[in-house]
Amino acid sequence: MANISILTIGSEILDGRVQDTNANYLCELFTNLGFRAINILTCDDVIEDIVSALDFVSLNSNVVIVSGGLGPTTDDLTREAIAKYCNKNLILDEQSLVHMQEYFKKRGRKLEECNKQQAYFPETATVIPNSVGTAPGFFIENLNQENKSVIYFSVPGVPSELFKMVESTIIPEIQKRFPNIKPTYRKSFKVFSVPEAVVNARITSLNLPPEIVVSYRAKFPEIHVILKSPNASVENYFESVKVAVGKEFIITEDLQESSEEVLHKILIRDGVTIAGAESCTGGAISTLLTNTPGSSKYFLGCNIVYSNQTKHDELGIDKSTIEKFGAVSPEVAIEMAKNAREKFRSTLAYSITGIAGPDGGSKEKPVGLFYIGLAHEKGVYCLKGFHLSSRKGIRAYSSYLALDVIRRHLLSLPPQKDANI
Amino acid sequence: MANISILTIGSEILDGRVQDTNANYLCELFTNLGFRAINILTCDDVIEDIVSALDFVSLNSNVVIVSGGLGPTTDDLTREAIAKYCNKNLILDEQSLVHMQEYFKKRGRKLEECNKQQAYFPETATVIPNSVGTAPGFFIENLNQENKSVIYFSVPGVPSELFKMVESTIIPEIQKRFPNIKPTYRKSFKVFSVPEAVVNARITSLNLPPEIVVSYRAKFPEIHVILKSPNASVENYFESVKVAVGKEFIITEDLQESSEEVLHKILIRDGVTIAGAESCTGGAISTLLTNTPGSSKYFLGCNIVYSNQTKHDELGIDKSTIEKFGAVSPEVAIEMAKNAREKFRSTLAYSITGIAGPDGGSKEKPVGLFYIGLAHEKGVYCLKGFHLSSRKGIRAYSSYLALDVIRRHLLSLPPQKDANI
Repeated sequence: MANISILTIGSEILDGRVQDTNANYLCELFTNLGFRAINILTCDDVIEDIVSALDFVSLNSNVVIVSGGLGPTTDDLTREAIAKYCNKNLILDEQSLVHMQEYFKKRGRKLEECNKQQAYFPETATVIPNSVGTAPGFFIENLNQENKSVIYFSVPGVPSELFKMVESTIIPEIQKRFPNIKPTYRKSFKVFSVPEAVVNARITSLNLPPEIVVSYRAKFPEIHVILKSPNASVENYFESVKVAVGKEFIITEDLQESSEEVLHKILIRDGVTIAGAESCTGGAISTLLTNTPGSSKYFLGCNIVYSNQTKHDELGIDKSTIEKFGAVSPEVAIEMAKNAREKFRSTLAYSITGIAGPDGGSKEKPVGLFYIGLAHEKGVYCLKGFHLSSRKGIRAYSSYLALDVIRRHLLSLPPQKDANI
Repeated sequence: MANISILTIGSEILDGRVQDTNANYLCELFTNLGFRAINILTCDDVIEDIVSALDFVSLNSNVVIVSGGLGPTTDDLTREAIAKYCNKNLILDEQSLVHMQEYFKKRGRKLEECNKQQAYFPETATVIPNSVGTAPGFFIENLNQENKSVIYFSVPGVPSELFKMVESTIIPEIQKRFPNIKPTYRKSFKVFSVPEAVVNARITSLNLPPEIVVSYRAKFPEIHVILKSPNASVENYFESVKVAVGKEFIITEDLQESSEEVLHKILIRDGVTIAGAESCTGGAISTLLTNTPGSSKYFLGCNIVYSNQTKHDELGIDKSTIEKFGAVSPEVAIEMAKNAREKFRSTLAYSITGIAGPDGGSKEKPVGLFYIGLAHEKGVYCLKGFHLSSRKGIRAYSSYLALDVIRRHLLSLPPQKDANI
């Protein structure tokens, strides 16, 4: 295993003006190459701060990528700080100066005196030419506090310039120096409607060998589960992990694929049409169902029936049903789905009615309670759901649960009885 | 001057799965409060790594905010690491356990054994209750290597939970402890439907004095403009800045207030009702209009009429109108709004029809074209809009533009002629 750290230099990140995105790009890239990123550190454009930051990230890293602080102004101090940390002098690289002079001449601009500092590098460093800007980068090897060798790559903070240097120089250089590092094996899936702690308990009960590293990430409304191993052994345990979690709760194994894209493929494959009737979600389910290009192939329309009067006028919901059972009831959800299916002449029709809050709840019907209906060829299914969070959270969660009800129906998976999460 | 550092804990950031955004939020916030952020550091969920990271960031900081690693799973080690660094034992906080048990009971869920670790805190720590999730935070004071006092705030990495704790506890606690740190003077507003470069050019033309620092932030779909000065002089220029930008484009001066909240207040104040008819946005406008609690006071319902057949069946749109002008046309948008207003008997009715793409465009009617209708007491207004981006971007942008059409109408502001952005 080899470790990598990212050191980002710049006051514009520390005062919140700019969101650093380079570190995220670099971390993902090097993780996939088989490296372990151990630290991301941001410090100010101050020599002493950069030197102590270098000292900290060097302790456990084999590779350090330093981004930013290579510009022409007085607050660009990375060259000087790295030279100081490595006990080297800064010396002029004639070739870089010539390249820079040509760059400016070509653009009819004058090379300012301050630009010249960009052609100075620590002795023993190798220059990385900049094909898209003025500031060249460089790399240099040095011993850390424990006399272990660390290689430092210093690159501009401008994303496009950084990407170019990573591709042209850093990746080839690293692969040459660490020929035994192999990309990590990883498998993953998305779970919906099981709490993170329960997913964790189910997987922990399998007592997987320690080389399988399991990580969890709550990405509302899903839990992402990632299994990694240094060799292919993760393949052997993947099936049992999925069974332990419960396959019907697994939406997809592709973390880039959204719930609505998964459902989109099933709806297209099955050649069915769908319509809906929404109360508490106010159109959020329809919005999800029309997120994916091509959704007009199955999505016909939806009635957003927010008031009781509209429920009656648009969908012919019996006023007596509402009076007897209340607008938030399985009876109303079922009638909404059934009537929507008839009205739109669709294969399927979903419905939802609930209390999104924060007001309007009672002891019998608290905020967070909702009913999802699904009318299909053989009848109507109704799911009682409960999700106590913010208004936004309740609306979003129940919308995704409606997608899940449709998905399970079309995949002939066991429907949920109660969805309490 | 007081220094602050951010320590973020989580392998999901180091392996590149997640882009950390909390640090950027915290850096901006504390810079505005008058602090200097000196380091942002990310480390892995490993006790030794967290302890040495704490040691590093403590050296020059008065305040350290530690985010992440407070969850219920075995890789959540922040509590333990901070206790170890501060030489304290972890002790059970009965009140947090009771609160957690109630949280789960209320949701009809079982408290897993692993959840209980979330009720343990280092001795002498003060618990920060979590009003939106299960993991409480805490803060604790300790001496660094140089015997200077540092206060550590440990909060969950989930942004919504972190924000709450920052507002409820961290800011008041810090203001109490550092009474001499004075916030920067600032004024701000949100602009909608003017490109960032145009906003910038309009403000630059004013030649504001150098002590007024203007910053821009594109926060889709709005541009946030922030003016800062070390003293109250920013007040003197605020009005002329707003006039230069164009007051009708300014949605609110409160950056925390959403467009739908702004419109909500106007709709409530005016006592009007609203209904709608949506095609390309698939319910996204209705979802926005029902985001705010109390929206049932004005929102009656909406027809999502995705197919031409549904446009006819639900809203009585003449098939000949669609044939003659196309489904995406001012004629259809106007008829949709008019018919929806009659059908729902509402004061106002909005409509939208457009091409969200990525397919379905033509030379005359390209992807990104849409028409927004608004039927009111005196007639029907129709806005031609064009916004070329992704399907998601087009749907979101046009939905916010529909809110803006309603806002301008109710505030008697000049309506837009064309909205090309």
